[in-house]
Amino acid sequence: MSIYLDNAATSHPKPESVYQAVMHAMREIGASPGRGGHRRSLEAGRLLLQAREAIATLFAIPDSSRIIMTHSATEALNLALRGVLAPGDHVVTTSMEHNSLMRPLAALRASGVEVTVVRADGTGMVDPDDVRRALRPTTRMVALAHISNVCGTIQPIDRMGAIAREAGALFLVDAAQSAGSEPIDVIRTGIDLLAAPGHKGLYGPQGTGFLYASPAVPLKPLLQGGTGTSSTAEEQPLTLPDGFEAGTHNMPGIAGLKAGVEFVLEQGVSAIGGKERHLVASVAQRLAEVPQVTLYGPSDPTLRGGVLSFTVAGTDPAALAFMLDHNHDIAVRAGLHCAPQAHRTLGSFPGGTLRMSPGWFSTGEEIAIFCDAVVECCQF
Amino acid sequence: MSIYLDNAATSHPKPESVYQAVMHAMREIGASPGRGGHRRSLEAGRLLLQAREAIATLFAIPDSSRIIMTHSATEALNLALRGVLAPGDHVVTTSMEHNSLMRPLAALRASGVEVTVVRADGTGMVDPDDVRRALRPTTRMVALAHISNVCGTIQPIDRMGAIAREAGALFLVDAAQSAGSEPIDVIRTGIDLLAAPGHKGLYGPQGTGFLYASPAVPLKPLLQGGTGTSSTAEEQPLTLPDGFEAGTHNMPGIAGLKAGVEFVLEQGVSAIGGKERHLVASVAQRLAEVPQVTLYGPSDPTLRGGVLSFTVAGTDPAALAFMLDHNHDIAVRAGLHCAPQAHRTLGSFPGGTLRMSPGWFSTGEEIAIFCDAVVECCQF
Repeated sequence: MSIYLDNAATSHPKPESVYQAVMHAMREIGASPGRGGHRRSLEAGRLLLQAREAIATLFAIPDSSRIIMTHSATEALNLALRGVLAPGDHVVTTSMEHNSLMRPLAALRASGVEVTVVRADGTGMVDPDDVRRALRPTTRMVALAHISNVCGTIQPIDRMGAIAREAGALFLVDAAQSAGSEPIDVIRTGIDLLAAPGHKGLYGPQGTGFLYASPAVPLKPLLQGGTGTSSTAEEQPLTLPDGFEAGTHNMPGIAGLKAGVEFVLEQGVSAIGGKERHLVASVAQRLAEVPQVTLYGPSDPTLRGGVLSFTVAGTDPAALAFMLDHNHDIAVRAGLHCAPQAHRTLGSFPGGTLRMSPGWFSTGEEIAIFCDAVVECCQF
Repeated sequence: MSIYLDNAATSHPKPESVYQAVMHAMREIGASPGRGGHRRSLEAGRLLLQAREAIATLFAIPDSSRIIMTHSATEALNLALRGVLAPGDHVVTTSMEHNSLMRPLAALRASGVEVTVVRADGTGMVDPDDVRRALRPTTRMVALAHISNVCGTIQPIDRMGAIAREAGALFLVDAAQSAGSEPIDVIRTGIDLLAAPGHKGLYGPQGTGFLYASPAVPLKPLLQGGTGTSSTAEEQPLTLPDGFEAGTHNMPGIAGLKAGVEFVLEQGVSAIGGKERHLVASVAQRLAEVPQVTLYGPSDPTLRGGVLSFTVAGTDPAALAFMLDHNHDIAVRAGLHCAPQAHRTLGSFPGGTLRMSPGWFSTGEEIAIFCDAVVECCQF
């Protein structure tokens, strides 16, 4: 039995409707929106609009034209940062961020953007008061991940959003680990920029993602090119969403993403997140009894999303992951998970951790097999 | 019978092996390269390498690690231009370019890059001597499309490459309309940067593309983020290809692209291009007899790829495309095709043209029906 517990990297399997939607887009539609007036192109245009509308429904976004389709959360974060920040601007972020946020910020720092990294506590939790204390008159943005991709810690984004708003700063949320499994309401939380991948908790294919930008955000495009609109203009149009989606869309991916988001809407975010948290809590409870195991992140299960990191004394996480894969056909991820500072914060640098992340299709039986396998590995 | 003659926008249908490869990547693999050490992730890594190797074979690229996977030719062109050019650099390009090249250049011009646009003749052909005359001591790059997406004119890229090399300038070829249907050898032609979409003549899905960069090119990444490599480094690694492929790969797309390129290798570029040119020549011959029709591009069929543009006196191209779609279920594209300057050069601005573009799966019967339908529309 193959057991997949690496949903924090990419969710697998996808709902059957997602596979069907991808095939329908490829076999039956074939064309691209805005690249022709024939029925295939118009059908592609309808599909793209429906995908935006589904995403808007999920995140309570009032205007779906402010949802820019990207090919990953990484592209969305680059657009959110590089499309807004200018030399002299100050950004507050945290020590729990993924390289998809840290590396664009490092590049921007080289061009005169100032960055303050607020350190989380040993469970990965950021204190909103620390964010408040880091604010400056030049603070243009508060930017952080909703849920840590390393240890699952859920940040209090409502309070962070209020702090950013009071300071007149934009609020950027990286929802890579929360989109689809934690309720997000961009208006209520005051999110100006929401970046998410399509291929994790939204159950779409790899190669999809989006950035929502509120009307308060003066965004510049990352790429220039054909948009199928304003074709006579030599300059890139700045209208949303087309001016920010240069080039042919990943229509099979977007069709799958639409089906994935519709699946999430049908199941309900609370049901999905609740199941994942329940499975993770049961692993945490079982492994807490194993003396060689060190668990990372909050001990209160309500503060953790569907991601759990741990180490086993005397065993390299990569070796443990190899044993789980080789001996038990269990897929998990070992290492730094593209977030070195998070491991420095948690005390797991440079060895990293073993990370397990269930999904909607994970079962209690799989979790029990996983726990048994870890315990078995501990006995070597 | 649905007739698809818009392959210059996106090829359709795809070979059956492409659909199968996309589904296999989604259903059976599911994971991403470099994002885990388990067998699914390793399998994804192998697939990615095989895709690069197939592309390398097709274009005689000696080192497949210099092939950067992108999500479109637009992204590849942006990377080739914005990742190389600095203020003070001079670029020579042509009046036949797509907005995917013109718009990034327009943005770069605003930041101090100088651009000379060499005007093609009325058939869309660029004289290499005009390129030579446009060179300056500061010319850093000669950049042009191999085949016009408007009228199919094939530029003499061997001569252009030699001129660029003599001048010590980099040579960028946009192979959006030629990859898969015209032989391209990056070494023989002296191509330093080759940008191509995956979803046209390479028969991959939308959402794919690549940039080849020769060792002579000092390239900077467009995006920063997680690469699954050098995870401890806060700065983006500059190694190829990983440092230029931040974020999760479009693995279903790349799997399909690999199958598409393998299909092209099996059929042979000459066979594919020969068939397309033959079909286009037969349309040109037939429509040349219709008094209301004006054909654009070279009259010599050996100078034209698989794209044909024309107008019908007294009929708006969009209206004609609508009639063909509505009355005959024939998909073609009307308008400016994201290349306004090309239409100014050809004399078809601002109304644009009707463009038909067959593919490998087009048949002589479909072409005959298309010609009959155009003739019928001319009689209204």
